[in-house]
Amino acid sequence: MTDRKPTADLDELTVDLDLAHVFHSWSAQGGGRTPFVLAGGLGSRVWDHSGTTYLDFSSQLVNLNIGHQHPAVVRAIVEQAGLLATVAPATANLTRGQAASRIVARAPDGFHKVFFTNGGADANENAIRLARLHTGRDKILSTYRSYHGNTGAAIVATGDWRRVPNEFARGHAHFFGPYLYRSDFWATTPEQECERALRHLERVIVSEGPSGIAAVLLETIPGTAGVLLPPPGYLPGVRALCDRYGILLILDEVMAGFGRTGSWLALDLYDVVPDLITFAKGVNSGYVPAGGVIIPDSIANDFDTTVFPGGLTYSGHPLAMAAIVAALDAMESEGIVDNAARIGRDVLAPGLAELAERHPIIGEVRGVGVFWALELVADRATREPVGAGVMAKIKAELLARGLLPFIAENRIHVVPPCVVTDAEAAEALSIYDEVLSLL
Amino acid sequence: MTDRKPTADLDELTVDLDLAHVFHSWSAQGGGRTPFVLAGGLGSRVWDHSGTTYLDFSSQLVNLNIGHQHPAVVRAIVEQAGLLATVAPATANLTRGQAASRIVARAPDGFHKVFFTNGGADANENAIRLARLHTGRDKILSTYRSYHGNTGAAIVATGDWRRVPNEFARGHAHFFGPYLYRSDFWATTPEQECERALRHLERVIVSEGPSGIAAVLLETIPGTAGVLLPPPGYLPGVRALCDRYGILLILDEVMAGFGRTGSWLALDLYDVVPDLITFAKGVNSGYVPAGGVIIPDSIANDFDTTVFPGGLTYSGHPLAMAAIVAALDAMESEGIVDNAARIGRDVLAPGLAELAERHPIIGEVRGVGVFWALELVADRATREPVGAGVMAKIKAELLARGLLPFIAENRIHVVPPCVVTDAEAAEALSIYDEVLSLL
Repeated sequence: MTDRKPTADLDELTVDLDLAHVFHSWSAQGGGRTPFVLAGGLGSRVWDHSGTTYLDFSSQLVNLNIGHQHPAVVRAIVEQAGLLATVAPATANLTRGQAASRIVARAPDGFHKVFFTNGGADANENAIRLARLHTGRDKILSTYRSYHGNTGAAIVATGDWRRVPNEFARGHAHFFGPYLYRSDFWATTPEQECERALRHLERVIVSEGPSGIAAVLLETIPGTAGVLLPPPGYLPGVRALCDRYGILLILDEVMAGFGRTGSWLALDLYDVVPDLITFAKGVNSGYVPAGGVIIPDSIANDFDTTVFPGGLTYSGHPLAMAAIVAALDAMESEGIVDNAARIGRDVLAPGLAELAERHPIIGEVRGVGVFWALELVADRATREPVGAGVMAKIKAELLARGLLPFIAENRIHVVPPCVVTDAEAAEALSIYDEVLSLL
Repeated sequence: MTDRKPTADLDELTVDLDLAHVFHSWSAQGGGRTPFVLAGGLGSRVWDHSGTTYLDFSSQLVNLNIGHQHPAVVRAIVEQAGLLATVAPATANLTRGQAASRIVARAPDGFHKVFFTNGGADANENAIRLARLHTGRDKILSTYRSYHGNTGAAIVATGDWRRVPNEFARGHAHFFGPYLYRSDFWATTPEQECERALRHLERVIVSEGPSGIAAVLLETIPGTAGVLLPPPGYLPGVRALCDRYGILLILDEVMAGFGRTGSWLALDLYDVVPDLITFAKGVNSGYVPAGGVIIPDSIANDFDTTVFPGGLTYSGHPLAMAAIVAALDAMESEGIVDNAARIGRDVLAPGLAELAERHPIIGEVRGVGVFWALELVADRATREPVGAGVMAKIKAELLARGLLPFIAENRIHVVPPCVVTDAEAAEALSIYDEVLSLL
């Protein structure tokens, strides 16, 4: 990295190299693109090479639960890099065992093993594989409002638009989940939404043929789809349906898990125990790519003498494992999950509610912990979403005021790191307020 | 990592945690498993906590081209970890641009962009996606003797046994590649094998329907399938068939690329330019999980104004990118690729040939650079592979003599790091010799 220069020239070089050589995720690549340079960060703040700083209320891709550059996690990576940076998955490595034991300690009773992957997509791929092999059944049911990753089965399990150009996996069917604000069931109360969503799911199960369905795959709280907290009773109801028809329940905790909701797993907020749990992002805040499946004995035991037909070179990668151990230990010892809960309850809940009172463009505020969405509407009565032009203006104005936002369709997702302080949350609320006042 | 102790107790703890909590790739998980502990390494050597060392002639999973703990790569990871450990893929990051520019510098003319993934599987997933979108066609053709990764499309593109329990992607068909030693075409010379393999491929293309075929996906040199060097003329012949029928050619360089063959890319050894190139492993020796697709302008331009429908949270992860920059720079400045070529030509080629003269169990020696296979047979005339019991004994005896081998079916793959020294290669040859003498 001899071509580093300590000036704004580095921002220019970064943009030039990016435009010339980097092909980006989920985007058009052409000349109209203006790359947003990031060079460093600390806690809830990030900056470019010129020293322009931003309050990171995106947590990058909602993965940075522990905040930028947590010293204990950086130290753990540095220490492991000095010992052994990479090792084959078939070997036993101490850091991997330590990471696995800390993860299962956060899971419900009976979950004792972890299969590590490189991220959320291949976590879901392998959970789907386990469900199919365990049940001997084929179909996976998931919701239209969902995102489960970009690979073969994960992208077809995904419900949103990203599935449509990618339908090359078979054995998937989709249903509608609960979302009272835009109910697919003509419901007007949470109780009604819950009851009707469960009835709809049962109708889909029966119509698809229960004996062919391996699993229902759900984000515990659908994230990119809009922070869609399930109504009380929904997840227990899905569990009961799965039990009735011999179907496994996979909960995708990739975005919601490991602190984001102010609890260790989002499923802790609901009275539900799934059959498989997938994770990534928050487990080590993405400091090193990692994900995985938490597996109960009832399923792990299938493969005591039978070969598990899945795997990858970087399964249980030592640097990723070191980052998991350090991140989970720091989250525990520093009360980071509790902080997320407290900020959600005492600062964001009242603060965002107040914003909604002052700005009619906010149709609904939803969330828990540091996992919130503001749904913006052109008209509160019709709930018509605001258009892309308005959202682009909001994004630009937030950035201009030093807030890095997470924008999805007609929503601002308010998703800071779990370490966000009261002062930073207040600062962000004030910037949102100022920008919404411009509209 | 407060539970580290500087004694053999750590090996025991590692085994206990591994058996209790780690679910492993491509294996049975039960009590009969005896985890092999690795705790550290340097160059071509690895060791456990007790100080037992091994000569690593596996390169772990044939990914460790630069050897264990190369100081420049470790330093780059440490440095980047201190600046910014993670960043969203949509942003521009200097290290990412630097990594991409170094990768395209090793690709054929016209390849200017890199889409980064977490490993080889999602590299192939995205190459397949690009091929389908570029051609508007559906089917992917690949060989039975191949491995392309563990996710939805990658595992169904895979030809070997690992595909069979995982056939949930559609749009794949398989054909036979050239492999003179076990010819599927009743050939007796390389020329005949090449000609017949090409004729077979054309028959499959015509029979599957050329207008529906998006791509032919090939490992430039099939790796885990047996280091199956294609005969001269085969890859140019496949290129010509692809051109004739408007099909893209994807070369999978995940295992063969970035030094393994003694050239920067394995395709440099053959007179062929593909339409897409996938990579992982050797690009940064797996120090941080990374892979990707190298994309020519002719395909990248499709997405100048159209959204590319693929992506992932850790695309272009800063630590992975720092490791790529440092690894490729060190491989260049230290002549590591040249070393692999020289060791292959001057030490392994003659040394393994001599082994084959002395041990009738060796049916064939194949390879180039530090990418070799010894095919073991019960009978040289019938070429009947030796059984699993013999291979298990060989593995145990090699380990007992301090050599960590790569065993696949009836083969020993001789795949040390590219930095292997003459003395280490001589030591390994002597250990192979000793163990084969026991049989």
